[in-house]
Amino acid sequence: MESEVLRITTGRRRSVVDLTGEIAGFVAGRGDGLLSVFVPHATAGLAIIETGAGSDADFLDRIDALLPRDDSLYRHRHGSPGHGADHVLPGFVSPSLTIPVVDGDMTLGTWQSVVLIDTNEDNPERRIRLSFLPG
Amino acid sequence: MESEVLRITTGRRRSVVDLTGEIAGFVAGRGDGLLSVFVPHATAGLAIIETGAGSDADFLDRIDALLPRDDSLYRHRHGSPGHGADHVLPGFVSPSLTIPVVDGDMTLGTWQSVVLIDTNEDNPERRIRLSFLPG
Amino acid sequence: MESEVLRITTGRRRSVVDLTGEIAGFVAGRGDGLLSVFVPHATAGLAIIETGAGSDADFLDRIDALLPRDDSLYRHRHGSPGHGADHVLPGFVSPSLTIPVVDGDMTLGTWQSVVLIDTNEDNPERRIRLSFLPG
Repeated sequence: MESEVLRITTGRRRSVVDLTGEIAGFVAGRGDGLLSVFVPHATAGLAIIETGAGSDADFLDRIDALLPRDDSLYRHRHGSPGHGADHVLPGFVSPSLTIPVVDGDMTLGTWQSVVLIDTNEDNPERRIRLSFLPG
Repeated sequence: MESEVLRITTGRRRSVVDLTGEIAGFVAGRGDGLLSVFVPHATAGLAIIETGAGSDADFLDRIDALLPRDDSLYRHRHGSPGHGADHVLPGFVSPSLTIPVVDGDMTLGTWQSVVLIDTNEDNPERRIRLSFLPG
Repeated sequence: MESEVLRITTGRRRSVVDLTGEIAGFVAGRGDGLLSVFVPHATAGLAIIETGAGSDADFLDRIDALLPRDDSLYRHRHGSPGHGADHVLPGFVSPSLTIPVVDGDMTLGTWQSVVLIDTNEDNPERRIRLSFLPG
């Protein structure tokens, strides 16, 4: 298994970060196998959605509707408002994804991108572990 | 890794399609390993739930409650009403699943089935990629 | 692939059970590869969240807010109140997780724990399948 850590700066804004290009570079030339994308943070998640046509912002809106950023709803509250919600996020939007790779390409559909969901304003630097198990 | 694409017709109705039989056929005789089930579409997801006793319809009801099909809530809106919600669905119901296989059988529990969730009325044909990494 | 089944007692209370220690023991000494954690039950899920600082209880609260335990909302209803919700849970909190392992250690971040979410009061004994595919 080949495994490496990608470091990205999400800044202090809540964001959906498209990782598709970096991940495509990691798997290029590796043949067939399973790719694991894994975020070693407790206040972020990963998803496969369309980007660039509004759905990334829609996704953040729906996250806020379902996990309100009202600290009175959470036992875990410190840091910026909404931090309690940030810690529940990975329960619904997992920090782990597996994607098949065929002939060095992720088998994504035309409108699919791999994104990091980072609702946490207090942690501007993020790591993403990419691991490839050939087969 | 063995990988192939299953093609199914979901039609123009929002649906939960049980894929368990087709997937069982794909892994039969393959020994031990990890199975990846992956949907290369941006408006569909995969889940493992009980089917045939109401929970499949309950799941669609809950999706509608959590991701309302009211286009005024979404930036991404075109096609049939609710298309904005369809594009957020895979953020919460991932298009990627991994299932262990032992001696050619998925290790599903008695009441578990693998299903495709397709809320998009505009796309009646769907592909599902099945990949098996032996080990 | 090495695969074994962990048996745990969750009792008759709705619970978030931290499995990190048991899973760490399973992968210790195994080198690099992908770990699959899989729950063969139709009324439970798995997540990676922080535990011990309130977020585990917050997660159960949010599950109840999103999947109300009001049987009139569900077709599938028998057993204890809320059983219909229990059967929809795995649609949103998957029973399958994949975690990369490097040099015998899961690549979890500092605040991440692997937990079983069991909202079903009627099933006090649970199985968790751990499978390791080396690479």
